Amino acid sequence: MRSLTLSQIATLLNLPAPGDGNRPVSGISTLAEASERELSFLGSEKYLDDFATTKAAAVLVQKRVKLPADHKKLVLFVDDADLAVAKLLEHFAPPVPRPPLGRDHSAFIAPGASISEGARIGPNVFVGDDSRIGKNVVLHAGVYVGCDVTIGDDCELFPGVVIRERITLGSRVIIHAGSILGTDGFGYRWDGKQHVKIPQIGTVIVGDDVEIGSCVCIDRAKFSATRIGRGTKIDNLVQIGHNVVVGPHCIIVGQAGLAGSVTLGSGVVLGGQSAIRDHVRIGDQSAVAACSGVAEDVDPKTIVSGLPALPHRQSLREQAALRRLPDLVVQVRKLQEQLDELRKTK
Amino acid sequence: MRSLTLSQIATLLNLPAPGDGNRPVSGISTLAEASERELSFLGSEKYLDDFATTKAAAVLVQKRVKLPADHKKLVLFVDDADLAVAKLLEHFAPPVPRPPLGRDHSAFIAPGASISEGARIGPNVFVGDDSRIGKNVVLHAGVYVGCDVTIGDDCELFPGVVIRERITLGSRVIIHAGSILGTDGFGYRWDGKQHVKIPQIGTVIVGDDVEIGSCVCIDRAKFSATRIGRGTKIDNLVQIGHNVVVGPHCIIVGQAGLAGSVTLGSGVVLGGQSAIRDHVRIGDQSAVAACSGVAEDVDPKTIVSGLPALPHRQSLREQAALRRLPDLVVQVRKLQEQLDELRKTK
Amino acid sequence: MRSLTLSQIATLLNLPAPGDGNRPVSGISTLAEASERELSFLGSEKYLDDFATTKAAAVLVQKRVKLPADHKKLVLFVDDADLAVAKLLEHFAPPVPRPPLGRDHSAFIAPGASISEGARIGPNVFVGDDSRIGKNVVLHAGVYVGCDVTIGDDCELFPGVVIRERITLGSRVIIHAGSILGTDGFGYRWDGKQHVKIPQIGTVIVGDDVEIGSCVCIDRAKFSATRIGRGTKIDNLVQIGHNVVVGPHCIIVGQAGLAGSVTLGSGVVLGGQSAIRDHVRIGDQSAVAACSGVAEDVDPKTIVSGLPALPHRQSLREQAALRRLPDLVVQVRKLQEQLDELRKTK
Repeated sequence: MRSLTLSQIATLLNLPAPGDGNRPVSGISTLAEASERELSFLGSEKYLDDFATTKAAAVLVQKRVKLPADHKKLVLFVDDADLAVAKLLEHFAPPVPRPPLGRDHSAFIAPGASISEGARIGPNVFVGDDSRIGKNVVLHAGVYVGCDVTIGDDCELFPGVVIRERITLGSRVIIHAGSILGTDGFGYRWDGKQHVKIPQIGTVIVGDDVEIGSCVCIDRAKFSATRIGRGTKIDNLVQIGHNVVVGPHCIIVGQAGLAGSVTLGSGVVLGGQSAIRDHVRIGDQSAVAACSGVAEDVDPKTIVSGLPALPHRQSLREQAALRRLPDLVVQVRKLQEQLDELRKTK
Repeated sequence: MRSLTLSQIATLLNLPAPGDGNRPVSGISTLAEASERELSFLGSEKYLDDFATTKAAAVLVQKRVKLPADHKKLVLFVDDADLAVAKLLEHFAPPVPRPPLGRDHSAFIAPGASISEGARIGPNVFVGDDSRIGKNVVLHAGVYVGCDVTIGDDCELFPGVVIRERITLGSRVIIHAGSILGTDGFGYRWDGKQHVKIPQIGTVIVGDDVEIGSCVCIDRAKFSATRIGRGTKIDNLVQIGHNVVVGPHCIIVGQAGLAGSVTLGSGVVLGGQSAIRDHVRIGDQSAVAACSGVAEDVDPKTIVSGLPALPHRQSLREQAALRRLPDLVVQVRKLQEQLDELRKTK
Repeated sequence: MRSLTLSQIATLLNLPAPGDGNRPVSGISTLAEASERELSFLGSEKYLDDFATTKAAAVLVQKRVKLPADHKKLVLFVDDADLAVAKLLEHFAPPVPRPPLGRDHSAFIAPGASISEGARIGPNVFVGDDSRIGKNVVLHAGVYVGCDVTIGDDCELFPGVVIRERITLGSRVIIHAGSILGTDGFGYRWDGKQHVKIPQIGTVIVGDDVEIGSCVCIDRAKFSATRIGRGTKIDNLVQIGHNVVVGPHCIIVGQAGLAGSVTLGSGVVLGGQSAIRDHVRIGDQSAVAACSGVAEDVDPKTIVSGLPALPHRQSLREQAALRRLPDLVVQVRKLQEQLDELRKTK
């Protein structure tokens, strides 16, 4: 773990020099778990008890948080504790262990493949014919890159990633262990006796600066391409069907599923375990709540939630009414009785 | 990419010869994306704007679609545009890149394993003792086949597939990258202090012509076998628990989950992210809508939907009523006020 | 398959010696599927038809089950048929095929890694620098263990498992094929132009006696550790986000998803496809029904269900009311008509 002094930390965050500036700090932790050599942070008064007892060397405190007058902690006030933590993590981050420059002797590189300078190719990697591996690309142990694949500069593929044939990755793409790109899209036609496979002859095109988690499946298109826009970030265990088009800068949270030919605009957020029906279009800057199932197009800048997904405000209204439904059933029965009584006595 | 002339295409689809029959076509694309060397298709009037501006060499048009009188495109009228596209995709499909005949020197083949003629075994494949690999089987790089496994003729297992010990695959089974067959079923008993593993000593038996997507998990049975019926097709990231019996010709869409001992009849369709409770039986030709959770047996030829799943018609009725529920709450309150007023004035 | 005589089986289960005690039994199966050399079991009268026709050598019968007076089967009465079956499965279980003692020549073991005695390391395994592999550990073919990883004694990692750098596993941990531990947690900040990755510099710590299914993803912490408590069992395709803390002896069923910083107490059960929102705490001994979405903290010893999850009793009440909702809408309309009529005639 790398180490910084409190003075160095203050400089990194554009803060005035703190007292005890030479004190070394080797990491960040929660108030409860931090050791005397770690920094911690306080973003809300909810954690003041932990603040009182923390062993942390110093605490980054969000400016609006009211500290007890008599505290004796070394504190650094910041505008945004989350942002400050993120910046410091960049400095504390240990380097990712990578294969050495060049290729491991056990890697299989087809004669027709081209590997650019700076590439690091680990044990048991497979690179198929006619594939082009960009500069400084890291292929960790056991990665499979099929034939006629293009991988842009500075990409990193973690162990066990599979990139099937004819796929294109932009630059600076990160794909975590166990993800699979280019499986045939799921398409069959019934011929009266059996399901007959519809060939899936398209590809997958991934833009620059995309990051893809573990065990993600992105299917190849029936024809043309399944596309992931630049800067989009995809969490683990996500399913992306054939001919899906994901716009730039989207966030797709774990276990979400996008059926065939779904289109996401720019900056769309899909919550965990959300599901999008085939051919649905979701507009720019829209968001789908976790566990929702979207069966119809969503306008730009709209939040939807529920199963089936509705505009979020309507969904909340229905949920509130549903909480009252059991009582409503009773109330209506009593109303009926009162009314019947009234009609009788009239 | 393979190339066909328009005349050849017309012949394949049993259509009259078109004008410009020698024009070469090298693929299929959407109207918007097709180049001058590609074919496109029009199945509905919804896309007439794209039809007007497409660069496609020719367009397959569904017979009932009304084209503008003055269009100048080269069109081929067909009864079913989807079917015509599927047939042409079979001709345009490039061959899947495969390892050469025989076995790569880096493959580990146990001495007691038998490999039939025509097999193609890629780098770093593992085949355990007493396993039998059928004719023309393709094991792509990094496939793991445990001990005492039987793989029928003409199967293809993509990179990283794991087949644990004592499993049987029929003929022409396709398993896409990253799927795992034969993990122990999830079963424990609580002995008062801890969960004690219940041994899972059964197997998995996969029928002929089954296709399994990527990152699918099919657990081995507690005893006897987890079974996947012939001709069934399974999408990515599906979970199939121990002792499940899936009938023939089923379709199981991405991220569906079948708990232990579920039974599916013949021709059942499970939508994406659907979940089936353990021991539930779903009858022949029934269908479960996406995102549904099935907790009770389903009769044959029945569509169910919702969480919990209900007959689809009932589910739709409840959803329609739920849309009106917030207003209903208000209406009942007003009714009560009116009634109270009436009783007071009586 | 191992074989036992009926006498040996009776001894194992503390039962009186049965007639035909020398009869050999080589396995267990359902009444319908059992051969004459297999044992079967009957836990409920629901299966008396199968009992009448079974070919099983003998049947374990739950004591409270009433058998027909004239049956001629060889039966062994037991207090708990499930428990008896579990105990016998332990004896019938064939050994798991494992790599031989030592390391396969194709394995990559970094010079700085230490491997304890009794370890079995299969083909194409990768073990990174400074990693410590405990006694009797089994690393099946193609397992990846990154740098500075600690694996306790008697662990077994199945093919294709990936353990990224700086992770710690306790003793007797089982991880099934295709699971990934230590992927970066899913965290970004928007800098006005793009999502910027927040470094994830923490680790994953897995306790003793944990079992993890296939294609499970457990992300490393942003800082500190994602923790899985001792004795916890995790099914296939589960997502566990960064900084999650799972208590001891939990059961997490297939396709469940735990977002970042979720905390589970001791003995918590999460149903299949359940989802837990980030930062939610679930108390000791609580349970979440399958397909539920938990958005708020759950007290100890509480069962919740539904989307959003509510106390189970309330959830059932709402579901029952929802079944009546379409009729309620009609009833309220009629009430309104009757009331209007009454007011008119007043």
